[in-house]
Amino acid sequence: MKEFVYQKLATTLKEKIMSNVWRENERLPSIRKLSEQYAISKISVQTALHKLEASGLIKAKPKSGYYVLSRQNKSPILDKETEIKSPCLVKVPNVFHEIMENGAAFDIYPSAKVQQNTNHIELLNRHINRAMRQQPITNSLYYDNPEGVKELQIQISEHYRSRGLFILPDEICITSGCQNSLFLALSTCCEPGDIVVIESPAFYGCLQLLQLLKLKVIELPSSSDSGIKSADLQNILDKWKVKACIVTPNFSTPTGVCISLEEKKSLIRLANTHNFTIIEDDIYGDLGFHFTPEPLKSFDTSGKVILCSSISKSLSRDLRIGWIVGGEKHSQIIHQKLVNSLATNKTIQQGLASFMAEGFYRRHLIQYRQTLIEQRDLLINSVNEHWHFPFYFTIPDGGLSIWIELEPHIHTTSIYKKALKLGIIITPGMLFSSNKTFLNCLRLSFAHKVSGQRLEALKRIGSIIEHESLL
Amino acid sequence: MKEFVYQKLATTLKEKIMSNVWRENERLPSIRKLSEQYAISKISVQTALHKLEASGLIKAKPKSGYYVLSRQNKSPILDKETEIKSPCLVKVPNVFHEIMENGAAFDIYPSAKVQQNTNHIELLNRHINRAMRQQPITNSLYYDNPEGVKELQIQISEHYRSRGLFILPDEICITSGCQNSLFLALSTCCEPGDIVVIESPAFYGCLQLLQLLKLKVIELPSSSDSGIKSADLQNILDKWKVKACIVTPNFSTPTGVCISLEEKKSLIRLANTHNFTIIEDDIYGDLGFHFTPEPLKSFDTSGKVILCSSISKSLSRDLRIGWIVGGEKHSQIIHQKLVNSLATNKTIQQGLASFMAEGFYRRHLIQYRQTLIEQRDLLINSVNEHWHFPFYFTIPDGGLSIWIELEPHIHTTSIYKKALKLGIIITPGMLFSSNKTFLNCLRLSFAHKVSGQRLEALKRIGSIIEHESLL
Repeated sequence: MKEFVYQKLATTLKEKIMSNVWRENERLPSIRKLSEQYAISKISVQTALHKLEASGLIKAKPKSGYYVLSRQNKSPILDKETEIKSPCLVKVPNVFHEIMENGAAFDIYPSAKVQQNTNHIELLNRHINRAMRQQPITNSLYYDNPEGVKELQIQISEHYRSRGLFILPDEICITSGCQNSLFLALSTCCEPGDIVVIESPAFYGCLQLLQLLKLKVIELPSSSDSGIKSADLQNILDKWKVKACIVTPNFSTPTGVCISLEEKKSLIRLANTHNFTIIEDDIYGDLGFHFTPEPLKSFDTSGKVILCSSISKSLSRDLRIGWIVGGEKHSQIIHQKLVNSLATNKTIQQGLASFMAEGFYRRHLIQYRQTLIEQRDLLINSVNEHWHFPFYFTIPDGGLSIWIELEPHIHTTSIYKKALKLGIIITPGMLFSSNKTFLNCLRLSFAHKVSGQRLEALKRIGSIIEHESLL
Repeated sequence: MKEFVYQKLATTLKEKIMSNVWRENERLPSIRKLSEQYAISKISVQTALHKLEASGLIKAKPKSGYYVLSRQNKSPILDKETEIKSPCLVKVPNVFHEIMENGAAFDIYPSAKVQQNTNHIELLNRHINRAMRQQPITNSLYYDNPEGVKELQIQISEHYRSRGLFILPDEICITSGCQNSLFLALSTCCEPGDIVVIESPAFYGCLQLLQLLKLKVIELPSSSDSGIKSADLQNILDKWKVKACIVTPNFSTPTGVCISLEEKKSLIRLANTHNFTIIEDDIYGDLGFHFTPEPLKSFDTSGKVILCSSISKSLSRDLRIGWIVGGEKHSQIIHQKLVNSLATNKTIQQGLASFMAEGFYRRHLIQYRQTLIEQRDLLINSVNEHWHFPFYFTIPDGGLSIWIELEPHIHTTSIYKKALKLGIIITPGMLFSSNKTFLNCLRLSFAHKVSGQRLEALKRIGSIIEHESLL
């Protein structure tokens, strides 16, 4: 992973604070001054300062500037020490399902008007319409092959080529979205009672799958600045027979963290040595703001990685198109798909394939990433401006969300319930672990622009938290 | 079930043959004479004669008429005595998956031109296009509820009302097709090792599901003139603890048989007394040629029946829309759907809902049933004319296929393989049971008009069988 200008500056400034060049309560130079001094753009300075603020090293005071905080304020998210627990079956509370359903949309206030640029969605629809007109008869009378439409397999294969992953179209199986891919991957690799390692915090959809499939889980701590460590995984593998490990190496939800190149290679080495399957969730892989990291799959030397992804987070949630690159499990996965749902809608695949073939997906991503950077910064500025209580958060370089940690006694499930009554939706920390590690955390998404009614919703969340912290 | 004119005539004629009014090798009166004598249409006479021919009581001789056959020729399909075996895990051979994939399309020669009237498919596409234009923004940014779009739930509920089943829209969960519904139903009701009763011959998609979910199967003999008998099921229930019973009460594949009203009610009584779930596969329920039978679900008094269906066989295979009415398991099924694939494409659901709301599905069914009757008769006439070896077949009053039994020593899997090399696809009997009961049977579909290249394909199948019978 390359280091970006703002990252370099953040490191430099952090070192100055840690070595007491700047002391507690001291005011940092202004953005303009830092920009001149280090000869980098104001935007980059701002991003670096956000990073430091998120780590709890500095704090903005309105209309005054940034001040050094006490070292005790250093973010507990970044340093959280989670012990590794023995494998156990997952049992999530019933409210989980309801929250999962609500949280999937990544919108804190779904009844507000959507302000997003939808040129590309309209174009995509036009391509689907064209596919419908061109093949009206044959499509409706036949099921597609379970592996999907060749043209789409080709486009996905081409797309990955640009990310350093070289796979043949035939190695791809089309699915009804990434959740469906994860389902097919897990039910192909594992039998009830098998042990599966997941990141902690983890994607809640995986926790649900583990429960449904009666699999045992071990949660592997993932820090929000570097993700999981293969050394920790090695410790687990020394103790237990692990069947699979589910990992989101790039812009993992909820923290948005990426695993380094070295760690990616170490993970592959472990999978080869200990003979387990890595299920890679790459759903945020296309949403890197400054760089587009390689999938873990691109380092796979022996088919041990099953890559799962979809366009749900990057283009359309409603299309219900995802895919799976099954490696050594490819033919078993196709069989699973056949028995699970026979086939995927062919016309929609053809429409998406021609949309991609004409370069529109690539162009959409360029636009969309820019939108997301702006929306991320707006969200960060808004919470900083309107939330007047202690909290820490991550500033991701990709994906759709920030991960916020509140004071330890504040339970975000209670905040979720209160907000829901107002039509406001947050994703509480309880969703991201099978134990109670993240009860005082929440995920906030910048998939929508936090302005107008959504800004009001954000303020209301702040008031609810403030009220809760006084209880 | 009402008795139709042709059925009455078939019974009358059968009685005359059985009571030796007409003897072996005697020629029956001509169609014109019978039509005048019984004051019914020639079409009805023809259908009655087809029925008797299928039962092995009479045989057409080209340009001469129908002759009474020796009583020994009575169809072994109709009288087959199958013993009930102890429950065991399903293990289907690998070739099963390939045949399932090929057979799903119900087309003996997929490379031939399709001659079907597609007005309604074009209309359906127009409705989907309209749905896309009307809701381009919101749909792509949000997942649908796992239970599906309200408008479609309403239409399906309305549709069932016309078939005597009264359910609320909220009782329906939309899925990605009937196979997906069956998957959700079985994985909700059963744990690995549980016993499930299926019809024999059974739908191969169910056998695959049972294997995947590690369930034990008991095959319940289903005769091609009256289907399964609740008395046989009672015997099984007395001996074993059954978790679920999968049944296609209306136009079951491959035989096309319907269960009588009385038997339907008896099945429900058994489910209530012995506390097991009935999984009803209603995918052919809308394809009755002379009558539209009630789903089993309409007699359900305590939520024990899970109704699974889709429009794949009656309107479009490619749309990938099905549904499930889960009864007492409704909320568990919605949870399963959420974890399996989150949601279904909303735009397509909206398009289908408006197509149904404007009465086009109903109109399509009226047209399509007429087409199917003609195609069924054409298929029957064609096999009778071009196949010059002993065989028996069913003449279904609905659905898409006839079920053919050849001489005991002819293995249809071998015929499948030889035909496949010529691009011709039959569905061999091995697909319809977990044991070797139907190795000399095959399913032939009349979903496509058997003329031109498809008629040539049918003749080739005949030659392959003829050659095989000499080996």
